Amino acid sequence: MSENTKPKFASRGSKEAIETGTSFQPKFDAGGLIPAIVTDASTGEVLMFAWMDQDALALTIETRAAYFWSRSRKALWKKGQESGNVFNVVEMLIDCDQDVVLLRVDVEGNGLACHTGQRSCFYRSVPLGAAASPALRLTPFGEKTKAR
Amino acid sequence: MSENTKPKFASRGSKEAIETGTSFQPKFDAGGLIPAIVTDASTGEVLMFAWMDQDALALTIETRAAYFWSRSRKALWKKGQESGNVFNVVEMLIDCDQDVVLLRVDVEGNGLACHTGQRSCFYRSVPLGAAASPALRLTPFGEKTKAR
Repeated sequence: MSENTKPKFASRGSKEAIETGTSFQPKFDAGGLIPAIVTDASTGEVLMFAWMDQDALALTIETRAAYFWSRSRKALWKKGQESGNVFNVVEMLIDCDQDVVLLRVDVEGNGLACHTGQRSCFYRSVPLGAAASPALRLTPFGEKTKAR
Repeated sequence: MSENTKPKFASRGSKEAIETGTSFQPKFDAGGLIPAIVTDASTGEVLMFAWMDQDALALTIETRAAYFWSRSRKALWKKGQESGNVFNVVEMLIDCDQDVVLLRVDVEGNGLACHTGQRSCFYRSVPLGAAASPALRLTPFGEKTKAR
């Protein structure tokens, strides 16, 4: 995306600087990516999880619209470019280790964040209190809500 | 951790089965890990982000207490084992691609989820609307709250 060879972000400092300092020193993994958690700025609901490369993170900061790196397509993408469900970033947070970002967003368009047409990507629950086995069955949100 | 050689989880099916089915088919990455987002079950606040291997995921499901895989220590760990801040899992959700889990938890002990002594690991915000540069400065939550 960018031909700019100047560093976009500060390099990693000491553990103390990373955890308690105010210098933004995001860590990208061996593949050059940092995980991004996306929540609804109004409700706090977790909507999506995706990955960012340096360009995606820089563009998100600069434009306040969320960009990600698609690992399957190996390409930068702007969320909502096709669907219209652009993520307007209200606040971006970084975690203690500075290796995960959290985006609090307002979703444009029809407000559906998941490509399957659900509001959130997390629309099925995993059973708890049972032994792990290949027979475990998920419960779709609608059914669970009815059962409550 | 486990000498059990029986598969703990179903193998991956078709895209349709993964996205719309009810068979739990979690995807572990090349390193054998799946990302886990942790939120406060009462407030919805994102508390932490960590990784699980198959054993951590299986133990979390079976015991309803959150286990993770430490990539730095290369070891399974039970959250709160030392601090007392055990995560009691109220609900576990899986995303559309079944490659990320979301844990809604009640935090035992003093309720502080982050090892730095903060309630949440996400206690600093990243400035928005500026060009990315090594000079970007984070704003600690306390200061931001005061400024609002």
